[in-house]
Amino acid sequence: MKVIAGGVTAAEGFAAASCEANIKYKNRTDMAMVYSKEPCVCAGTFTSNVVKAACVKWDMQVVSSGKLLQAVVINSGIANAATGAEGFAACEATAKAVETALQVPYEQVAVASTGVIGMQLPVEKLTAGVQKMSNTLSDSIEAGTDASKAIMTTDTVNKEVAVTFELGGKKVTLGGMSKGSGMIHPNMCTMLAFLTTDAAIEKQLLQEATSAVVADTFNMITVDGDTSTNDTLLVMANGLAGNPVITEKDKDYETFVEALRYVCETLAKKMAADGEGASKLFEATVVNAKSKEDAKTLARAIVGSNLSKAAIFGCDANFGRFLCAMGYSGAVFDETDVELFFKSEKGTLQVFDHGTPLAFDEEKALSIMQSSAVTVYADMHEGDGNATAWGCDLTYDYVKINADYRS
Amino acid sequence: MKVIAGGVTAAEGFAAASCEANIKYKNRTDMAMVYSKEPCVCAGTFTSNVVKAACVKWDMQVVSSGKLLQAVVINSGIANAATGAEGFAACEATAKAVETALQVPYEQVAVASTGVIGMQLPVEKLTAGVQKMSNTLSDSIEAGTDASKAIMTTDTVNKEVAVTFELGGKKVTLGGMSKGSGMIHPNMCTMLAFLTTDAAIEKQLLQEATSAVVADTFNMITVDGDTSTNDTLLVMANGLAGNPVITEKDKDYETFVEALRYVCETLAKKMAADGEGASKLFEATVVNAKSKEDAKTLARAIVGSNLSKAAIFGCDANFGRFLCAMGYSGAVFDETDVELFFKSEKGTLQVFDHGTPLAFDEEKALSIMQSSAVTVYADMHEGDGNATAWGCDLTYDYVKINADYRS
Repeated sequence: MKVIAGGVTAAEGFAAASCEANIKYKNRTDMAMVYSKEPCVCAGTFTSNVVKAACVKWDMQVVSSGKLLQAVVINSGIANAATGAEGFAACEATAKAVETALQVPYEQVAVASTGVIGMQLPVEKLTAGVQKMSNTLSDSIEAGTDASKAIMTTDTVNKEVAVTFELGGKKVTLGGMSKGSGMIHPNMCTMLAFLTTDAAIEKQLLQEATSAVVADTFNMITVDGDTSTNDTLLVMANGLAGNPVITEKDKDYETFVEALRYVCETLAKKMAADGEGASKLFEATVVNAKSKEDAKTLARAIVGSNLSKAAIFGCDANFGRFLCAMGYSGAVFDETDVELFFKSEKGTLQVFDHGTPLAFDEEKALSIMQSSAVTVYADMHEGDGNATAWGCDLTYDYVKINADYRS
Repeated sequence: MKVIAGGVTAAEGFAAASCEANIKYKNRTDMAMVYSKEPCVCAGTFTSNVVKAACVKWDMQVVSSGKLLQAVVINSGIANAATGAEGFAACEATAKAVETALQVPYEQVAVASTGVIGMQLPVEKLTAGVQKMSNTLSDSIEAGTDASKAIMTTDTVNKEVAVTFELGGKKVTLGGMSKGSGMIHPNMCTMLAFLTTDAAIEKQLLQEATSAVVADTFNMITVDGDTSTNDTLLVMANGLAGNPVITEKDKDYETFVEALRYVCETLAKKMAADGEGASKLFEATVVNAKSKEDAKTLARAIVGSNLSKAAIFGCDANFGRFLCAMGYSGAVFDETDVELFFKSEKGTLQVFDHGTPLAFDEEKALSIMQSSAVTVYADMHEGDGNATAWGCDLTYDYVKINADYRS
């Protein structure tokens, strides 16, 4: 597997476009389109929030209907959540605008939204945006990068990644883009992510691979514990690489899953590190827990704790907060089994040993905590369950961004 | 029932003391003692965190042993959590110092701690503090107030309340004190609270009343979603009011529960409003949910959401965030059943009506959101379950306090 430049347009047959639709922002792009010249097998994971945005309901229908998927239209101004029948009609109008412009059946068009909840979308601006983008679709790397910028809200950097690998002697490409960066908490997938590949794979296997990988990657990140109404991840596979179609869980399937995992983990970590107001990536690795489920629960509790996040921001090696978060996570363990470490590129420091706090070198602790990526590492010594979760620190800027997001 | 001045010394036969023990803070009191001249029937609720502070383990033993309780010693410098066998020995040493000074059997002494996790207590300072306080016990109102100040950490105001009521023709008094104000999230009870009463009541009924009331009061507040290792609530009842002992769930029991509920709710709301960095009280009332459990889940999700809390701080009537939090709470509902309102002393404003957002007067919204106490009110129209939860806004000061708490 080789990491290459680009994102959603890296794979054969995919094009993208973006435009200024003036839905919420001025003087920046706020709509994007991803298009495949051949209809795609697709898979998706969606928010577990019972209040689902209209576009999430629309896309769930597209994915579960067994139909193919050929285009996705995204806007980053208004979430189209809590908008009733009018909101659902806006999804249909958007899809039908794609049908008119590109002769793609509207049932094969997905839509995604992110932004303010409880506001109606301006349908004319949306359909005008679709028209504009349909005329400027390009398969260049830049077009994909521009699309990844158009879907940003409070993100400070765009997020894309692509890899190539080989299946049945053919070069296959998988790329993707995603956006954060608030209302992010693992539960299905997190916010918007779009992956494209020219691999040939059966729909059911694509969905199985996607669900499994999302559980270990996007579902293991948290910014603020708030699971959005709009979380959507879509994977489109158009088969243009010409590899023998993956129809069972063979070696090719494993190779594909490995690439999918790399792309999802890379995008997930980028989202965590760019969480609203974040100044650093905060990683928790839990090893030797009673089960993998316990390890996940513990790791997510550590990176999800406001007090832990504030300590990471303050570069304070206050390990009691991390242990406390593990204690209320729901996983049952004996603190006298546990070892705790802080890790970064600056080194490793043990702070807790089987129930007893250790005296440690405060200067070394500070140097580790000041790194741009800090890991809390817990060895539970109670089994063989391992997991990693990713989050970010809690900063003044998080409060600032969210005290005044709507206006 | 009548609200009177005072706290833990209001009831007959109770005295309190406090002192500067220099455990962590300088130039302020950081130890307190509550003492009853007669041994007390007692009840308690404790943190559900699996990492329990040594003092929590000690007190659980005192309460469950069926022994009487005569004194509680509290320090507000070091939590005595994650401290292994040495931490538990510190509890015993403290209790034995009380036995020496006041001839109270050490098994009838409770201990409580709050502060930094993962540090050992200085036992000599603790026992010296016990000695000092044993000589200065007083049943004055002021002594109780001073004790409520000595147990503060990042609290900005002390918290106490007392009421009198009548049982079997006798005047009975119930008072209490508590402290917040971070690492606060409903799960058993929250941080430290000590209640004293001269009512005569059987131990098992006292525990039942306490557990039921805590579930609706202390367990319905949240500051930051972090359930502490040290949460402890203790109720001491010495029987000196001379009322006929409450031995069944009769009218006297109900009167006592009503007083207990008032005292607990008052302390809980004071803790929520004084949450770390808080600028206002944030209340969520959910009515007509499918069940009381659902109503509680929904109300707690609303006041627990970082995004909701930041919107309350920013006076932003961004109702989508509250609806989103309800959606991921775990309670299942249909958004087309829901009505949402903002309320304060400034009035009531409906913002969402059975699945559809309402256009509303932004000026009126701002005036409501700028109040010192703001309520989000949700009518689910799906059953008869009602609940209220209390929290506070998320502010720059929360981050400031916690980025740098240990040093």
